[in-house]
Amino acid sequence: MALKKKPVTGMKDILPREMEIRNYVTSIIRETYASFGFTSIETPCVEHIENLCSKQGGENEKLIFKILKRGEKLKLESAKEEGDLVDSGLRYDLTLPLSRYYSNNSNDLPAPFKALQMGYVWRADRPQRGRFRQFMQCDIDILGEATYMAEIELVLATTTLLGKLDFHNFTIRINDRKILKAMAQYSGFPADSFDTVFIILDKMDKIGLDGVAEELEKEGFTKESIDTYLGMFKEITNDVEGVRFIKEKLKDVLDPKVAEDLETIISTVDSVKTADFKMSFDPTLVRGMSYYTGPIFEIAMDEFGGSVGGGGRYDEMIGKFTGSNTSACGFSIGFERIVMLLLERGYQIPGQGAKKAYLIEKNMPADRLAQIFAQADQERKEGTQVNISIMKKNKKFQKDQMTTEGYTEFVEFFKEKR
Amino acid sequence: MALKKKPVTGMKDILPREMEIRNYVTSIIRETYASFGFTSIETPCVEHIENLCSKQGGENEKLIFKILKRGEKLKLESAKEEGDLVDSGLRYDLTLPLSRYYSNNSNDLPAPFKALQMGYVWRADRPQRGRFRQFMQCDIDILGEATYMAEIELVLATTTLLGKLDFHNFTIRINDRKILKAMAQYSGFPADSFDTVFIILDKMDKIGLDGVAEELEKEGFTKESIDTYLGMFKEITNDVEGVRFIKEKLKDVLDPKVAEDLETIISTVDSVKTADFKMSFDPTLVRGMSYYTGPIFEIAMDEFGGSVGGGGRYDEMIGKFTGSNTSACGFSIGFERIVMLLLERGYQIPGQGAKKAYLIEKNMPADRLAQIFAQADQERKEGTQVNISIMKKNKKFQKDQMTTEGYTEFVEFFKEKR
Repeated sequence: MALKKKPVTGMKDILPREMEIRNYVTSIIRETYASFGFTSIETPCVEHIENLCSKQGGENEKLIFKILKRGEKLKLESAKEEGDLVDSGLRYDLTLPLSRYYSNNSNDLPAPFKALQMGYVWRADRPQRGRFRQFMQCDIDILGEATYMAEIELVLATTTLLGKLDFHNFTIRINDRKILKAMAQYSGFPADSFDTVFIILDKMDKIGLDGVAEELEKEGFTKESIDTYLGMFKEITNDVEGVRFIKEKLKDVLDPKVAEDLETIISTVDSVKTADFKMSFDPTLVRGMSYYTGPIFEIAMDEFGGSVGGGGRYDEMIGKFTGSNTSACGFSIGFERIVMLLLERGYQIPGQGAKKAYLIEKNMPADRLAQIFAQADQERKEGTQVNISIMKKNKKFQKDQMTTEGYTEFVEFFKEKR
Repeated sequence: MALKKKPVTGMKDILPREMEIRNYVTSIIRETYASFGFTSIETPCVEHIENLCSKQGGENEKLIFKILKRGEKLKLESAKEEGDLVDSGLRYDLTLPLSRYYSNNSNDLPAPFKALQMGYVWRADRPQRGRFRQFMQCDIDILGEATYMAEIELVLATTTLLGKLDFHNFTIRINDRKILKAMAQYSGFPADSFDTVFIILDKMDKIGLDGVAEELEKEGFTKESIDTYLGMFKEITNDVEGVRFIKEKLKDVLDPKVAEDLETIISTVDSVKTADFKMSFDPTLVRGMSYYTGPIFEIAMDEFGGSVGGGGRYDEMIGKFTGSNTSACGFSIGFERIVMLLLERGYQIPGQGAKKAYLIEKNMPADRLAQIFAQADQERKEGTQVNISIMKKNKKFQKDQMTTEGYTEFVEFFKEKR
């Protein structure tokens, strides 16, 4: 049978040059987040189908790669629907598995628990350029910390990381789901239509204030509500002044502590930050997932259209497993986007050792060969990459090819001294 | 709906202590193999079902986690057998995907191509202690190198790695599938029963020479063949003398170059090696997979009963994809076993920086908080891990807990100077 050469639809083979960048980014992530006290953990890539389909994942639940039952458990004849055939699936994110992990292992974990997860997730999205059905996610989460200490640490750790990877001039957009709701409530939108309002608000950066107004009108909301709502967005500035304005304006519908905490997060990060970015209070920031309960944030970069990462507080999700709520806040960076941006830039990994190629004439006697390998061993111990290969007939071509792989020095070994 | 807390059957959550060892082993693997000129690559975890079921994987093909077709392609009503329902599965090893990868990308790859792959594979084995259904594989392969240069490099790289991870006094067992066959042929076993003979031979270390003799008799082989065969095993020594004996003894059925090459591999590795191990010519070494075509090897360690890794030459597999054969030779180390052995030993990772905990009194004013975070930032830059958390009421318990996590220094911050 002829075998298939291409990867499965929507997934990709990773070539050496990209892998080099990926491994470098991975090592900087581990090093940076460890310096903030995050510890690495992992969950299996395969998760119970019941957990994956528990309505925590929103639209992602439609994109699950489902895994067939095995052995006697697979009853093909009597199966009436998909659910009869599968018992598990590939995880579509790392947040749901983290919640399961924490509920399973909390006795063995410190409190608060600072977790770093790097791992693949799978979504059967329609294939499109630059988006793949298997991709790496990289999440940091702080579980069991109810105060804004979590948000400050997450934003500082993430931005320090981006700085180390030579990203400059980016923005951390920040908002709070409670502010989002209070603004809608203050404007008189009915509580059961908030999600509709937010879906429209989320398009602000694409369609502008007028576009949002138009879509809200189409949905049949009153002119008064729409005017009040959009009037606020015009007045709010993207800094702590904006937060103070909101605190005053919404004093009847918003706990002032929400605004005060947000101000502390913004001002603390702003005064401590070492990377080159700005904090921006952005009341139009929505973040799709319904599980967020407090502050939410997103990384915006001019060189990349969309978001390069985001996160927020989700204090109610872990309770779904344990029965009692656990404070939780996380920040996910777009690993694949970061790798793509570095590749496009032709990023040079700093501090790489020398790469040397030994070219050895064919049929070298065993005793000479041993000497050569011993010499290589010595150089490798000293930090040089040594690639040993047989000298080809077309030596020039061979050297040219190895030069493109980064080999800068060639040592040739012949059977007889020349 | 109640969510499930445990991982799926046969897979595991990885706790921080194990993850620390895994990440350390991973970094030493990447560093060591890079110094030998291996470049990292990756294939998707999901592979075409046609490739997975192409008879390259032997028994592993019975253990595949199969993935359901999606959307319109899933025709539940008309499905008659499993094959109608699935289009892909989780890879059960990294060798088959490497062959597909090479045939897909060979134009963009150097020749010879030295690949390092680290990645999860999945097998729906019966769950048992210490064996999991998701586990990490770590393979190095050299493609396009027809000579023993490949074997020497693979064995040197692997043993150097094990030495760096503080393994001592282990053995590399080595044999050649051509010697295995020639010995069976010389003894007069019919060619179509070689596999039966090898399956029995493979039990030598468990049942001994007499046990092997007994089982061969049961299969109905002639006494003469059995006596000739087992007589040779008694005479062969486990060193280059043994290889020379075989070369002489089998001169009518074995190309002398096979034995000469094996001798060169053993003697070169022996004279160059820096790690603490011995090379052992072992004519009873079989290696299950039928795709091996030349030298085969395995790592034996006294502290661990079975094999801790192995590999060999498989010159005919890539041709199954490309139509023309490509020399290939690989060595896989048992990543999970190595991690388990290090954990059992209580392995201390060398060269880890200091871990310091900042404990901060609740409700610290924002300006003081900023100072504390700035101080942490300075220490982190200098290589210290700084974990910031809110001081708990039971401070002693909090410190004790953090001490078990490796924090050796505590700095306390109060709202008012004390």
